[in-house]
Amino acid sequence: MSLEFSRKITRVFTIGEIAEIAEAEVVGGDLTSAVAKQSEIIGVSSLEMARPRELTFLGARRYQERLLTSRATACILTRQYLDLLPKHMIGLIVKDPYLAMTHVLAQLYSDAITPNALFEHSGVSPSAIVHSLARLEPGVTIDPGAVIGPRVQIGTGSVIGAHAVIGADVCIGRHCNIGAHVTLMSALIGDRVIIHPGARLGQDGYGYALSENAYEKTPQLGRVIIQDEVEIGSNTTIDRGALRDTIIGEGTKIDNLVQIGHNVIIGRSCAIVAQTGVAGSSEIGDFVLIGGQAAIGGHLTIGDRAQIAAKSGVMRSVAAGARVGGAPARSLRKFMRMEAMLDKLARASKPKLNSN
Amino acid sequence: MSLEFSRKITRVFTIGEIAEIAEAEVVGGDLTSAVAKQSEIIGVSSLEMARPRELTFLGARRYQERLLTSRATACILTRQYLDLLPKHMIGLIVKDPYLAMTHVLAQLYSDAITPNALFEHSGVSPSAIVHSLARLEPGVTIDPGAVIGPRVQIGTGSVIGAHAVIGADVCIGRHCNIGAHVTLMSALIGDRVIIHPGARLGQDGYGYALSENAYEKTPQLGRVIIQDEVEIGSNTTIDRGALRDTIIGEGTKIDNLVQIGHNVIIGRSCAIVAQTGVAGSSEIGDFVLIGGQAAIGGHLTIGDRAQIAAKSGVMRSVAAGARVGGAPARSLRKFMRMEAMLDKLARASKPKLNSN
Amino acid sequence: MSLEFSRKITRVFTIGEIAEIAEAEVVGGDLTSAVAKQSEIIGVSSLEMARPRELTFLGARRYQERLLTSRATACILTRQYLDLLPKHMIGLIVKDPYLAMTHVLAQLYSDAITPNALFEHSGVSPSAIVHSLARLEPGVTIDPGAVIGPRVQIGTGSVIGAHAVIGADVCIGRHCNIGAHVTLMSALIGDRVIIHPGARLGQDGYGYALSENAYEKTPQLGRVIIQDEVEIGSNTTIDRGALRDTIIGEGTKIDNLVQIGHNVIIGRSCAIVAQTGVAGSSEIGDFVLIGGQAAIGGHLTIGDRAQIAAKSGVMRSVAAGARVGGAPARSLRKFMRMEAMLDKLARASKPKLNSN
Repeated sequence: MSLEFSRKITRVFTIGEIAEIAEAEVVGGDLTSAVAKQSEIIGVSSLEMARPRELTFLGARRYQERLLTSRATACILTRQYLDLLPKHMIGLIVKDPYLAMTHVLAQLYSDAITPNALFEHSGVSPSAIVHSLARLEPGVTIDPGAVIGPRVQIGTGSVIGAHAVIGADVCIGRHCNIGAHVTLMSALIGDRVIIHPGARLGQDGYGYALSENAYEKTPQLGRVIIQDEVEIGSNTTIDRGALRDTIIGEGTKIDNLVQIGHNVIIGRSCAIVAQTGVAGSSEIGDFVLIGGQAAIGGHLTIGDRAQIAAKSGVMRSVAAGARVGGAPARSLRKFMRMEAMLDKLARASKPKLNSN
Repeated sequence: MSLEFSRKITRVFTIGEIAEIAEAEVVGGDLTSAVAKQSEIIGVSSLEMARPRELTFLGARRYQERLLTSRATACILTRQYLDLLPKHMIGLIVKDPYLAMTHVLAQLYSDAITPNALFEHSGVSPSAIVHSLARLEPGVTIDPGAVIGPRVQIGTGSVIGAHAVIGADVCIGRHCNIGAHVTLMSALIGDRVIIHPGARLGQDGYGYALSENAYEKTPQLGRVIIQDEVEIGSNTTIDRGALRDTIIGEGTKIDNLVQIGHNVIIGRSCAIVAQTGVAGSSEIGDFVLIGGQAAIGGHLTIGDRAQIAAKSGVMRSVAAGARVGGAPARSLRKFMRMEAMLDKLARASKPKLNSN
Repeated sequence: MSLEFSRKITRVFTIGEIAEIAEAEVVGGDLTSAVAKQSEIIGVSSLEMARPRELTFLGARRYQERLLTSRATACILTRQYLDLLPKHMIGLIVKDPYLAMTHVLAQLYSDAITPNALFEHSGVSPSAIVHSLARLEPGVTIDPGAVIGPRVQIGTGSVIGAHAVIGADVCIGRHCNIGAHVTLMSALIGDRVIIHPGARLGQDGYGYALSENAYEKTPQLGRVIIQDEVEIGSNTTIDRGALRDTIIGEGTKIDNLVQIGHNVIIGRSCAIVAQTGVAGSSEIGDFVLIGGQAAIGGHLTIGDRAQIAAKSGVMRSVAAGARVGGAPARSLRKFMRMEAMLDKLARASKPKLNSN
């Protein structure tokens, strides 16, 4: 079966119920809208993998051909693709299919919003190692082998993954999910935070003073503060501050293998895509988007709602709302003009007898 | 001794035996070929580290000077470097020295092909934590501290490294090696798969819908499927699919610190070098080469046998057999022409009085 | 309190004592220098977080405004910013504030120079798994859950973090700190080495021979050698050599998420910033600086004191003392000239009616 690892669907839903969650208009295909609304949905899948009695969605033009051969019973889509809808398929017309699908999945697979305990138990696993001075609220789950240090505090509803290591004095809020193999040190973690396996928070930052040809290590004394509803990807690293704190603002989502240097302050609801690096002491505003493999130099300021293209190398501060790209980064418009110009010059310099 | 961590050589081999494995012609140096073939080899090492009674190989022109001072008894090389061979050294002449050496090492150090149990034991370590519903075939080795979840299946000959965490319902085939500290969730793993320490498979992908200035998490329901003979490097991350599966095709080799986004499908026998990222939903064909630190954007198609240069930023789909480079990526020919043109322009714009 | 995770300050220090450590001249502000030297300091913090009775420092021009509103009792700074010093604040004038602060912190927070045991215990944790053939000198600390393999040797004063996995035959010197979740295999580790959580050392390198459309794995037989006083960041990966060893020279400092390929040799006192990759068999001299997200190709030589800019893609060997940047990397001077020229051309090609 296509999704055997999924959390089970909560129950069977009718198209009518789903339309309500998705705020969608129902177009019945062969059926009247009223009959269509009685149809039952037992799962959700992609266009190509969906089977009858499943729901799917069309998120982008490039997948429109997959709609034609999809076996799904119903599809969430925008009005502009309605004429592509096969006759046998029920349409649920919305403005933003991805957002609608997010809402639908959150209802149909409600326990998949937060990763759960791997061992399907609750409470403290007998193989976990919990220091006698740690304080756990009722309703905390500790997976096998997790190590909880002295004076750690963990709020109700939080799950600590297998073999996670929580260092002395760390505070973790409520309804958090700390993945397997995560390391937390010198950290304050808010509520409803998700940290995926192998992320490292709170180790020493990269700080040395050069003295007569040797690097002397600068003691790192700050904390890592992770505000509510942050999500942090697998194997991402976030260093503790040196003399102040490293801070990740509320609702910011960080992908896998991202590096956040010491003293960095990131605002609310930023999106930071995989393999990006933010060097020490930079300050990033709210609602900033940073594409994958970008680099933000140290001691810079990135204004609210700035957008940094993937693979950018940002060497100067970026104004609020600005869009930059390239390495070194320039305004995105200028960067694209430069690239177009280079293309033109390269065509002009093309040897006459070679094909491209 | 130079290689004290090596698995021991299986036994002493003669040059004649090695020549047979390497499909090599023996050139005796001071000796007749027949006498040379009687010489015994007790180990293999690099040109500069090899000692008498050891075998070495010359893989590239740039190391030819090291041949002159090498103390090895014998060297695998191509005919074109034969005149560089010191008189005291036996030559084994082949077409592809690296391939020949790979075959020789596979015989001489046969237990180094697959990483082994760290604790040199077999069976299930008493400190491993195996759920009562897990099913292990006979001949499975579980290293200390590994955590095996409910309904996990593991095939014979597989080794699960120390502190690895295998989530509920994961299936692992036969003769696999799962490294220390690996996390597997929502994953199906084929036969003869090698996963190095700290790799993360099957965590949630990076999926959010933007709604009124907040990111809403999109539930991730798909699997990760790893086909036979795949090798995955240390600290690499491969996310589970959202509504379909993430798939890594047979024989594909992935290096360290690579990021593979949700829904990505990679074909057979691809090589993906360290720190590369493949964004969500892209589909990569067979025999594709991707150099280090490359980025493949989301929702793209990369055709069979395409070659992506290191550090490329691929923003459009790439045709089968095409070679691309640069960020944003262009055909490699065009990219090289652009770089040559830039060099020329930079020379022209060089201030008269400065040296470079 | 602002730094609750810090190791505690050793004791209260007077400004006079601190001036001696920092080799600083004391400027009393409202006080005479003699009176100022009697003032007591109970902590150190950043300009913006410091409170009365704390010390801070001004490291760069860009933070000079924060000096004006800082509540610190004293500030380490250079003479050129002396006129910015608020009247109530004591100045400690030095040539290199960052170096001076490093020395001061090393005295005031002496136990923060090396990360300590997470569980604040000494000796071998009862939940650690130590092979009967491992040899530990007296004074070794093993945190909960660490796995120590057969014939491992660990020197006095070393701390092995929670759930670290130390493979067979690994040698670790004295006064090392091996972080939580670190994996060490086929490794020799010197004295006073710090390895942060999740680093992977000694796994197989990325070596395959292509034979009739399939990759054959080349056995990896070498070691990883880490010399004295090296520091290695979180989730960094360093592969064992193939036929020779991978070597990291004395005093070299490697940041987070760095990839070091098999057979790489790195000299003394190099600084390698986060997310950099060094491909197999390259040889890097002493005192080399490599910025973040740089890539060094395989089989190259980087001379002593070379400087590689962040995000460089180095495809050819680099001479001693040279400074390079860009991808592909060129001399930094040429690279900057090219970028300036591109800027000029882009301005010239700017459409008349658009603003930038």
